[in-house]
Amino acid sequence: MDRTRVGIFGGSGYAGRELALLLLRHPRVELAFVASDRSAGTPVAQDLGVSTLETSLKYVTVAQGEALAAECAAVLLATPTEASLELAPKLLAHGCKVIDLSGGFRLSDAEAFTQYYGAVAPPAQLQASAAYGLPELFRSSIPSAKLVANPGCYPTSAALALAPLLSAKLIDPSSMIIDAASGVTGAGRKATEEYSFTELESDFKAYKVLKHQHTPEIAQSLARVAGLPSVKLTFTPHLLPVGRGILSTCYARLAKPATQSDLQACFAQAYGNEPFITLAKSPEQVSLRKVVGTNQCQIGVACEPEVGGQVVVISAIDNLVKGAAGQAVQNLNLVLGWEETTGLTSFRRFAS
Amino acid sequence: MDRTRVGIFGGSGYAGRELALLLLRHPRVELAFVASDRSAGTPVAQDLGVSTLETSLKYVTVAQGEALAAECAAVLLATPTEASLELAPKLLAHGCKVIDLSGGFRLSDAEAFTQYYGAVAPPAQLQASAAYGLPELFRSSIPSAKLVANPGCYPTSAALALAPLLSAKLIDPSSMIIDAASGVTGAGRKATEEYSFTELESDFKAYKVLKHQHTPEIAQSLARVAGLPSVKLTFTPHLLPVGRGILSTCYARLAKPATQSDLQACFAQAYGNEPFITLAKSPEQVSLRKVVGTNQCQIGVACEPEVGGQVVVISAIDNLVKGAAGQAVQNLNLVLGWEETTGLTSFRRFAS
Amino acid sequence: MDRTRVGIFGGSGYAGRELALLLLRHPRVELAFVASDRSAGTPVAQDLGVSTLETSLKYVTVAQGEALAAECAAVLLATPTEASLELAPKLLAHGCKVIDLSGGFRLSDAEAFTQYYGAVAPPAQLQASAAYGLPELFRSSIPSAKLVANPGCYPTSAALALAPLLSAKLIDPSSMIIDAASGVTGAGRKATEEYSFTELESDFKAYKVLKHQHTPEIAQSLARVAGLPSVKLTFTPHLLPVGRGILSTCYARLAKPATQSDLQACFAQAYGNEPFITLAKSPEQVSLRKVVGTNQCQIGVACEPEVGGQVVVISAIDNLVKGAAGQAVQNLNLVLGWEETTGLTSFRRFAS
Amino acid sequence: MDRTRVGIFGGSGYAGRELALLLLRHPRVELAFVASDRSAGTPVAQDLGVSTLETSLKYVTVAQGEALAAECAAVLLATPTEASLELAPKLLAHGCKVIDLSGGFRLSDAEAFTQYYGAVAPPAQLQASAAYGLPELFRSSIPSAKLVANPGCYPTSAALALAPLLSAKLIDPSSMIIDAASGVTGAGRKATEEYSFTELESDFKAYKVLKHQHTPEIAQSLARVAGLPSVKLTFTPHLLPVGRGILSTCYARLAKPATQSDLQACFAQAYGNEPFITLAKSPEQVSLRKVVGTNQCQIGVACEPEVGGQVVVISAIDNLVKGAAGQAVQNLNLVLGWEETTGLTSFRRFAS
Repeated sequence: MDRTRVGIFGGSGYAGRELALLLLRHPRVELAFVASDRSAGTPVAQDLGVSTLETSLKYVTVAQGEALAAECAAVLLATPTEASLELAPKLLAHGCKVIDLSGGFRLSDAEAFTQYYGAVAPPAQLQASAAYGLPELFRSSIPSAKLVANPGCYPTSAALALAPLLSAKLIDPSSMIIDAASGVTGAGRKATEEYSFTELESDFKAYKVLKHQHTPEIAQSLARVAGLPSVKLTFTPHLLPVGRGILSTCYARLAKPATQSDLQACFAQAYGNEPFITLAKSPEQVSLRKVVGTNQCQIGVACEPEVGGQVVVISAIDNLVKGAAGQAVQNLNLVLGWEETTGLTSFRRFAS
Repeated sequence: MDRTRVGIFGGSGYAGRELALLLLRHPRVELAFVASDRSAGTPVAQDLGVSTLETSLKYVTVAQGEALAAECAAVLLATPTEASLELAPKLLAHGCKVIDLSGGFRLSDAEAFTQYYGAVAPPAQLQASAAYGLPELFRSSIPSAKLVANPGCYPTSAALALAPLLSAKLIDPSSMIIDAASGVTGAGRKATEEYSFTELESDFKAYKVLKHQHTPEIAQSLARVAGLPSVKLTFTPHLLPVGRGILSTCYARLAKPATQSDLQACFAQAYGNEPFITLAKSPEQVSLRKVVGTNQCQIGVACEPEVGGQVVVISAIDNLVKGAAGQAVQNLNLVLGWEETTGLTSFRRFAS
Repeated sequence: MDRTRVGIFGGSGYAGRELALLLLRHPRVELAFVASDRSAGTPVAQDLGVSTLETSLKYVTVAQGEALAAECAAVLLATPTEASLELAPKLLAHGCKVIDLSGGFRLSDAEAFTQYYGAVAPPAQLQASAAYGLPELFRSSIPSAKLVANPGCYPTSAALALAPLLSAKLIDPSSMIIDAASGVTGAGRKATEEYSFTELESDFKAYKVLKHQHTPEIAQSLARVAGLPSVKLTFTPHLLPVGRGILSTCYARLAKPATQSDLQACFAQAYGNEPFITLAKSPEQVSLRKVVGTNQCQIGVACEPEVGGQVVVISAIDNLVKGAAGQAVQNLNLVLGWEETTGLTSFRRFAS
Repeated sequence: MDRTRVGIFGGSGYAGRELALLLLRHPRVELAFVASDRSAGTPVAQDLGVSTLETSLKYVTVAQGEALAAECAAVLLATPTEASLELAPKLLAHGCKVIDLSGGFRLSDAEAFTQYYGAVAPPAQLQASAAYGLPELFRSSIPSAKLVANPGCYPTSAALALAPLLSAKLIDPSSMIIDAASGVTGAGRKATEEYSFTELESDFKAYKVLKHQHTPEIAQSLARVAGLPSVKLTFTPHLLPVGRGILSTCYARLAKPATQSDLQACFAQAYGNEPFITLAKSPEQVSLRKVVGTNQCQIGVACEPEVGGQVVVISAIDNLVKGAAGQAVQNLNLVLGWEETTGLTSFRRFAS
């Protein structure tokens, strides 16, 4: 079977390197280029530190990447938001399908975009053309999209945790709180004292309380699922002293009486056939190590059964896989008409 | 100045060893004995691993400790709940003041005690005589008490975080959620695979969701502060891959309009003179490493200012100090009529 | 292509679980059974925590495994030494090829075996029939062996680091020191306080100084390579606060003048075609994270060029892969006549 | 008792902050100033993160510090080597005693200084006036010195481990190898990707193999102890994924027959009265956590008893205390004529 040419921009960040690893092993993809001004000229395999990778690819500059993209069916952008806003229209004009991992095209509300990203929102028509690439919730719009906004890591974990209950009107849409903790790779490749080993080791703390840019993105997904114009929710991210993984502990109030079994049945109905969702028997079973290195989202739920009773849903993902590069490959598979799981099942976590 | 004889039961667990370290340096205490059947005969300094401690004390058996207690002004129990229930009456009969670090005497509701601890509650009269030793909230009842129930680690961190707002009627008492994370010492000295390095390293997960025994203890304190017969709240503990420290992220809804400054003023009024509370300028400043190794509780707050707006209070303590042994020494100081901070100010965290 | 039936004994330890993960994805193997009295009845996929594994296999008892082994071409023993000594002869009698991961059949010197393992050595004839399964050094004897003694983790890393220089008579065989550090999985699945998270976190220490059982095993390999009846060396293992990986810093004195380039050329000649050895440009480039999750041994060398000058060779492996299960699959491939790398190349480390 | 004014330059690095913590609690010192151009104007207590420190001191600029130094009895330099070379003569001219924590005045061999530090050596006369401040080995020259070169962290740990055996001619001076591992604070406050949490977590590797600048410093101390013009040794540092602590595993060959007891007796004779050295019963007992947070050096030894047999000495220190700030306070006490342990005994490590 012929392989399809695909390129990556922003290939030297953590998400970009994870993308390169995935695409170098994707059975239907020929990785045409990895562009990174910062790493141009360096062999990709060397930067990835994987001596067994059979590739002689070297990083190219972004300018070189733009030229090479013309012969690609699709490109993935692991670039900062402003770089994505600039690159995407050019690449679309080349006829490439574009999957953007930045926050550039995720928010349909231009005002919220400007408030949270401090930048001018993309043109309304371009924004409107972007499919929000969370397949388990919004799969139907992805295959035909030319531009896919790949979801944020926290929004993936939070929306997957709460959507089925909201869609089934089991929880009160005004009661949602997401208390989440992420490994340090979530902050990207950083050369700052704040992210040095010495500063983070054995510590734990919250950041961007009541003002993280993923808040409107989570709200947008959940409003869409609930069929409401908007929902208001609270989101508190924390920084864990581990490399990878997000665990989101989500709270909401029951809108009608329901037992833990009822809620589990709701999840089973919503996600029973989803290849990348694992339902746990209880929220205590959900943990970072069960998902790190995989494209899985693991979810568990518990509740107090009366109306107004507390529901606790806990979900875990690998922030760089299901929360970034793995989900981008899911979206790539969808826009190129391939089996959604292609290139994503050999992921492994360690047995210990 | 003459030193006062004080003894410790349960001295080989993490809280007990921390107590021994504190009392060996307490300027008014003569540590009379440390009892631990498990470690009887071992030099205390060796078990503590502190070569510079000038003590020749060896662990004694519990039976030996009971005899030695007769000549002590006070004893501290770092024993399991059932052992404390058995020891406390005997020691009180000797005329010792007793500070118990277990859950044995914390809950005034015998039914809740049995439900959460799976044991028969202590006699009502004995239970009624116990002061709940959280000085910042309930100081007045402690000095005259013969029996002090030293609070749990999570209840200390959660109650200190929410009490001032509740007391000032700034938050809705029915809206409280405490999402907390603890270092592994919180589980005690464990010889199980579940707590092995290999199983916990790089992981993060919740436990005892909607059923942790500290839930009624937090609720009892907050009801008392609020002047209500009871309050209902949600508490979710998580296990962090670090040794020490608890960070509690607490949620509640504003009961009247208030800004972050208003809430900070409320905390300043409540805790402005408290030697063991540090008020942070924002919740993001609160972190484990700022409190580990100290008896401090650090607290920060943020909010959405409208009625019903979300309040987020974050507090951090060292679970073995302010959450156990340090607070027990605070209580010891109070019951023996000493300055409350005696022996607690030389605590240090590392500069890095 | 038909798959060949292979079984595992001792499948619930760390090495056994790693073996199960590898064999479930091995393209020529049908995993016939995983035996573990401790886990009998549990689904293997559940214990491995890998929800995407398509296997309905459950652990069987050791007795059941013995019956099932009769229909297997080969079995792998991830059992304790004494269990391996008992099982191997029975399984060989069934006509199975046996690859043993314990120390049971590694030492040809029965006296050394008894001294270091505190057990009766296996019968001399059986021991003599065992091939020592370190393919990069002793490949020729493996394919025809019925019993393969899979090397220890430290001996793999140390022998691979020193053998080429010794074989080329570049270093003095009496001058070798191996100073090595291992992650905690090297100690196996442990339910002891000594290996609890709290005890090991942020610590580093040596163990079994001048008396580790891997010392004679390393010496045996290196004597064989040097063509000497025996060599004497020093080996000091340390325990690192990480999950996986061994880094060995090996010292020896130059026996003839040589530069770093000369030594690198020696390694290139010895290992240039080895699929599982990666030569680094300098010893500083060798690190745990470059090999964890792979079957690679990474090696780098530096030296003082004069006769008697110090040579420093640093090697790194994943103790559970090249140091145990991965190398066992290499040996399985050799004894069953398959390409040596089969089922071992898709191993991955994370890009971050 | 009147307090003596002392100042610190370079107060915002890890060693400088540790010094500030120590001097703020030193019973005979009035901390007159802490100079750091980087932090000038910031309250020292805030940077130290210790809310209970009763000091209103703010960092001053280096220029301001120079003026304030005129009224100090002594100053401590936690500045980079080149800054120390420039500052020391000026401060000595003010009549201050100077304790320098950099490498500026440690090496008497100007050529070695230039080779390893890439800088012009200090004037010979100034260098010759500097006492090398390792009290346990070279105490006699310190009290009368105006300039003290405070030893490096690795040289402290290595020289203390090998000196007694060398001095007693028990080991061959040509056979010494030091294989050491340090926590990340050893590299100082760093804002680089190389020292980010993500890059170092779960990793272990060597650095500066055969070329670390501490090699000639260790050799200088050991030659002096051995009464030899020079000794040649090998030193390999490694980077541990922990915050603090150095463990040095030191190798040498026995020069005459001796048992482990003989070597222990040698250490007991040399260090029996040293307040900051703890002798362990075996090298396996020595560990980072037993010394972190203290000014102790813990040492254990094992050997093969015949001539030429391997001796293994393991020592551990806190790199920022006995390896930097704590030892600097020891030297301060000596040059100001105080009890050597003043201000250093209340150091604590955690009981867990």
